[in-house]
Amino acid sequence: MNRFEEKTIEKEVLFEGRIINLQVEKVALPNGKTSTREIIKHPGAVCVIALTDDDKLIMVEQYRKALERSILEIPAGKLEPGEEPVITAARELEEETGYGSETLTHLISFYTSPGFADELVHVFVANNLYKIQNAKGTDEDEFVELYELTLEEAEECLVDQRIFDAKTAYAVQYLRLQKMIDQQKKSQNKI
Amino acid sequence: MNRFEEKTIEKEVLFEGRIINLQVEKVALPNGKTSTREIIKHPGAVCVIALTDDDKLIMVEQYRKALERSILEIPAGKLEPGEEPVITAARELEEETGYGSETLTHLISFYTSPGFADELVHVFVANNLYKIQNAKGTDEDEFVELYELTLEEAEECLVDQRIFDAKTAYAVQYLRLQKMIDQQKKSQNKI
Repeated sequence: MNRFEEKTIEKEVLFEGRIINLQVEKVALPNGKTSTREIIKHPGAVCVIALTDDDKLIMVEQYRKALERSILEIPAGKLEPGEEPVITAARELEEETGYGSETLTHLISFYTSPGFADELVHVFVANNLYKIQNAKGTDEDEFVELYELTLEEAEECLVDQRIFDAKTAYAVQYLRLQKMIDQQKKSQNKI
Repeated sequence: MNRFEEKTIEKEVLFEGRIINLQVEKVALPNGKTSTREIIKHPGAVCVIALTDDDKLIMVEQYRKALERSILEIPAGKLEPGEEPVITAARELEEETGYGSETLTHLISFYTSPGFADELVHVFVANNLYKIQNAKGTDEDEFVELYELTLEEAEECLVDQRIFDAKTAYAVQYLRLQKMIDQQKKSQNKI
């Protein structure tokens, strides 16, 4: 899809960091005029909706410097260059929670901030979890605390904004929807 | 919530743009070591789940330079400094779709990319739409085409990745969940 395409006239890379790059592009608009676009390049990320055998959602509390506070999120992490997202998902799940999953399946991928960033997040669902002996820990500058929440507890955390990010809000809503679909199936089977 | 707080030791603003600023901070970690954090400052944004009287979802197709492609999104836009999100929501709805709404209600707010950006998106639901005579148009460097999609059509667009961003994926899932809740209420009323 390239409707209203904006062709690059000039591109300047202003910052190359550990995680993000910043570039500013001068673009030709569909009406022949020009504008500038400020763009963040990001390697992409994964996140994992990890469910325990008793249907609890595994969450990590983590300080987010950009927000100057900590929030509860589903386990997540950045892609290494050339890495398949499912590999990243398994690694982040192990590092942040100590769990492995027998069934790690891709659910959806979405861009988080298409107005200024190319960060694409791949969402996975992990069931049939097992504890990994001597699991790899988190990166040396990463500190997390684990929680296991029922769906109702997670919905309360959304209301009081302890859960406060898009991927985790999506995950909680996904679980509510799945629960309703399951209930509907059960009630149809009864009839 | 400030668990695992990272105190700023040094802060350098590397870029101040039209939409985003970039700063790099040296921080003290909970274990006494230091690290750097690359942070994008963003003014925040709104998006609107706008439903026609026949339950169609209003979408805009827009080219996103960061993605080098166009995607279908729910109407959205940035906050002006000091602006109440509900005001931004009404303005963006008018500019991008030509509609006003008699009932514009806040649904949820979430951070889009807490790992590197402070962008907070406020999600609104707009019902009871009416056409605004001589509606204000989009910004001069913004080109959009309108669509009205059924829920099923929107779900197909998610599968073929014409819809490809977090807020719009959230919106479509929200509408599916609301539809199931409505159906469940109706079937309970029958019994």
